Amino acid sequence: MPNTIRDHRVAVLAMGVLTGIVTLFADDKQPVPYPDGFRSWRHVKSLVVGPDHETFAKRGGIHHYYANETAVAGYRAGSFPDGSVVVDEAVFTKDGEGRARGITFEGERRFLDVMVKDSRRYASTGGWGYEHFDRSETTGQLSASDQGACSACHSKSPTDHVFSRLRP
Amino acid sequence: MPNTIRDHRVAVLAMGVLTGIVTLFADDKQPVPYPDGFRSWRHVKSLVVGPDHETFAKRGGIHHYYANETAVAGYRAGSFPDGSVVVDEAVFTKDGEGRARGITFEGERRFLDVMVKDSRRYASTGGWGYEHFDRSETTGQLSASDQGACSACHSKSPTDHVFSRLRP
Repeated sequence: MPNTIRDHRVAVLAMGVLTGIVTLFADDKQPVPYPDGFRSWRHVKSLVVGPDHETFAKRGGIHHYYANETAVAGYRAGSFPDGSVVVDEAVFTKDGEGRARGITFEGERRFLDVMVKDSRRYASTGGWGYEHFDRSETTGQLSASDQGACSACHSKSPTDHVFSRLRP
Repeated sequence: MPNTIRDHRVAVLAMGVLTGIVTLFADDKQPVPYPDGFRSWRHVKSLVVGPDHETFAKRGGIHHYYANETAVAGYRAGSFPDGSVVVDEAVFTKDGEGRARGITFEGERRFLDVMVKDSRRYASTGGWGYEHFDRSETTGQLSASDQGACSACHSKSPTDHVFSRLRP
């Protein structure tokens, strides 16, 4: 093999590796896994985002918060151990008809917002990783920049970045 | 002791026992226990009873349905084993203010409606016992007649007296 071709291949390989490294540092996103089985976790609380709220277009619907066992201990302690996972599940609503008029029912899932505590992995975002799963997707959509925005707001909570409280 | 006094005591005792038996048959209510720890059970589904619904005065608010493990198996099978317990927890609502305007939050508990499967104990009401616990009370309020009314309506369900479905 002539040297020119081999050199070319080495150069292409090196460029690929460099591109990968640059990409890694440019978007140092730490993936947050899909919360398998969260529907059997502890139901923390719920709320309804109605048409009069400024976030209705993106977040309107019934929101249920679920916590795994580690996070339940965190709610009680006021500080969350590594391994805590809190899920905000938003579902679209359906208006009842006929005799059910006036009742708001749950419809399809709108999204899952997930936060996972891992002090080392997510050190750059206050020890919590954030992700958004649209509809029934199991692959997250947030960029590192989006995750930073989640963290900036959640850092305002006096209880370890978590706003919700465990309803008795 | 003169015979007259002893006879009188026996008569009073006998009347007491008879009164008890008559009361037992007149109101053959089978108590349904308070569902301790239901808030850590599986969250089945939710709905909101709003001001436009005919039951709003008595049942308005956010309703959460919870099921113990036995009942979760029942939802999946379409028929509920003895020991199944389903809870309808109603909570009052609070309207958000300021930046939270348009959000409906959960308030105090309004009541618990509970149904328990025990084919023998509740044979007269289709195998299910029914109870209503007001606010944070742990003593039920339904008469045998009330329980019969619950049963009459629930017997219309095609799935073993249970109307709710397990949301995925």
